[in-house]
Amino acid sequence: MSKYLVISSDGHAGPPATIYREYLDPEFREAFDSHQEELEAGRMVDQSGFVEEWDEETGDHEMKAAYDPATRDRILDQEGVAAEVLFPDADVLGTGRLASSPFGSGLGSGVGVDPANVKAGARAHNRWLADFCKTNPARRLGVAVVPVTAGVEDAVTQVEEAAELGLRGVMIPTRWFEAPAYIDPSYDAVWSACEEAGMVLHTHSGAGPSDYPLGPGFVPIYATEAWWWAARPFWVLLLSGVFERHPGLKYSIAENGAWWVPDLVKRMDEKYVGGHNTRKFGEIFKVDLSMKPSEYVDRNCYFAASTPGVDEIDRRHEIGVGNLLWGNDLPHPEGTYPHTRKWITERFRDVPQDETALILGRTAAQVYRVDVPALEDVAERIGPTTEEVHGG
Amino acid sequence: MSKYLVISSDGHAGPPATIYREYLDPEFREAFDSHQEELEAGRMVDQSGFVEEWDEETGDHEMKAAYDPATRDRILDQEGVAAEVLFPDADVLGTGRLASSPFGSGLGSGVGVDPANVKAGARAHNRWLADFCKTNPARRLGVAVVPVTAGVEDAVTQVEEAAELGLRGVMIPTRWFEAPAYIDPSYDAVWSACEEAGMVLHTHSGAGPSDYPLGPGFVPIYATEAWWWAARPFWVLLLSGVFERHPGLKYSIAENGAWWVPDLVKRMDEKYVGGHNTRKFGEIFKVDLSMKPSEYVDRNCYFAASTPGVDEIDRRHEIGVGNLLWGNDLPHPEGTYPHTRKWITERFRDVPQDETALILGRTAAQVYRVDVPALEDVAERIGPTTEEVHGG
Repeated sequence: MSKYLVISSDGHAGPPATIYREYLDPEFREAFDSHQEELEAGRMVDQSGFVEEWDEETGDHEMKAAYDPATRDRILDQEGVAAEVLFPDADVLGTGRLASSPFGSGLGSGVGVDPANVKAGARAHNRWLADFCKTNPARRLGVAVVPVTAGVEDAVTQVEEAAELGLRGVMIPTRWFEAPAYIDPSYDAVWSACEEAGMVLHTHSGAGPSDYPLGPGFVPIYATEAWWWAARPFWVLLLSGVFERHPGLKYSIAENGAWWVPDLVKRMDEKYVGGHNTRKFGEIFKVDLSMKPSEYVDRNCYFAASTPGVDEIDRRHEIGVGNLLWGNDLPHPEGTYPHTRKWITERFRDVPQDETALILGRTAAQVYRVDVPALEDVAERIGPTTEEVHGG
Repeated sequence: MSKYLVISSDGHAGPPATIYREYLDPEFREAFDSHQEELEAGRMVDQSGFVEEWDEETGDHEMKAAYDPATRDRILDQEGVAAEVLFPDADVLGTGRLASSPFGSGLGSGVGVDPANVKAGARAHNRWLADFCKTNPARRLGVAVVPVTAGVEDAVTQVEEAAELGLRGVMIPTRWFEAPAYIDPSYDAVWSACEEAGMVLHTHSGAGPSDYPLGPGFVPIYATEAWWWAARPFWVLLLSGVFERHPGLKYSIAENGAWWVPDLVKRMDEKYVGGHNTRKFGEIFKVDLSMKPSEYVDRNCYFAASTPGVDEIDRRHEIGVGNLLWGNDLPHPEGTYPHTRKWITERFRDVPQDETALILGRTAAQVYRVDVPALEDVAERIGPTTEEVHGG
């Protein structure tokens, strides 16, 4: 009987506003207070019923899982998770018990906020996150927020600082909104900085469609589209040659499923070779790619599908067994917490052990340069057993 | 040995600018001349090499296929096509030999043009198209251009006028750009007018991403994304309840493949029932849908995949054999013209005859209310035989 080394490629952490405030450069604190008040006033929906139910289910009425080291470690142990990749915005319900990464610098892509504030908010989050990760460095793989769309000029510095702080990757906004698209060569210095520092580049699902109003049907439409907006930087980066110019850059798309990967990559391979359907365009705007798109996917890209569905497991060979990462989205209610062990068993029961090991953690261990011996000790103590996952 | 009744659900027709000019209300002719000059000046790429090659392949050096009734009929006979659904913009290469639907009112969604001009351009196209269809009414199923995003106030009149002119459907812009999204109830009167007149509603692939610049990688990125922009109105209409409120409305998505349909519809069914992943949103903005999204798809929606690929044929049962329409995209070079018979054989060789008959034309015959006896006479003369398609 052996145990799986499980790494969640999608966790979230962040403290209450009072704590974030202390991490902000002092000149931004007043603006932060106003922004928090605006967020409070703009809360659209009373979700207290669901929140109460959820707190009952987790037993964590203050959402301490999101920022208290001891609580987090206890939950990781319960869930069987050795380590986790940490993104911002632990309180997606906007209950106000926790703050989002200041000034909307997190999953919301900093849209509609003064760029100087967005950058200050990102710095504050990164400092807090570095301190949080230091409370248990082997188990916490922090992802710095780097809002490149708020201006690339200091983004390189932010990447370097985040690497020095011990963080393992950077998250850029999922949507570029009015900023230059990621096709733009001005971002190349940022990609270089990530590549050189071994920082994994991330986009995370979050910012979605912004061109239709809140109204009947909005929620299911948003939910139907969100994957696409979050996946979009994937082909924009790839087809504009970013992974050709930065062969060592690793890129992970977080909490965005992976059911869509085989079809999309197939199309990219078709469009790239310039077949029948695109021959009328000729050679205009051609990028020199020395490999097929699917080969860059294999080498550079990871799909942190989070709580994978039946489709991700069924299609794992088409997606790439070595490119699919598992996650539990802790502490978000759409993840598998607090029933992660049960969900792992349900999904992986019939998956061969070597493939299960890769998807559950061994691939992430390589990508995020983890301290494998330290995590193996943890996994030996709390990891799910092969019997537990696949049956006796 | 019997013959297939073949209807192309995706054809394009339009005349040279000198002819369009005559169909425009006189007060718009000067603006039309300027717009044509702008288009001429804005031509980005010299495609003369490809054009020459293409003209050689078709033997049609003046693109008379696009507007000359006798030429068109001769080609339809050669291709084995009994009738076709006609959209605007026959000269996608922008060679200048033909005009697009005036003022970009066609596939380009009329973006960046004075709405009054766009509407005048649409009226001119619809008048020309009605005359063109009258030259062989059984074989030409015209789709009127109705630029609802340029203002809905007179769109109902346009739908009614188009129906009176004998046209069979209307095409609305694929992208709404700055106009209200199709979730907006202000469009309901237009959907009602279509439903009442039995006019099939269409979006057609064309307008794509507009938020990154022409630059290296643009063409493959555009080609990778275009399907999504063209598919988007599908779930926006469906999930905002349009087919609940308009049970008789038929909607066809033209020249946009259908490989993506099963996965997207599956997600819509998941998001609609409000499962685990969306429960945090509660009941906000709920629309009353009396059926599952997939049931509206089955009843109201058609995928005019045009030149279907291997994936469309493989997935035809998941897409819906009765919802998949074939087309040849005549006279566009990315279609199967001038080799349509060969392509039909290649794709449908192993598809059962009853399914082949539905996809190639029998479903379209119902949707577009064609004169079946008249077309059966045509098919008897020029239709592909079952032996030709499936082997002897």
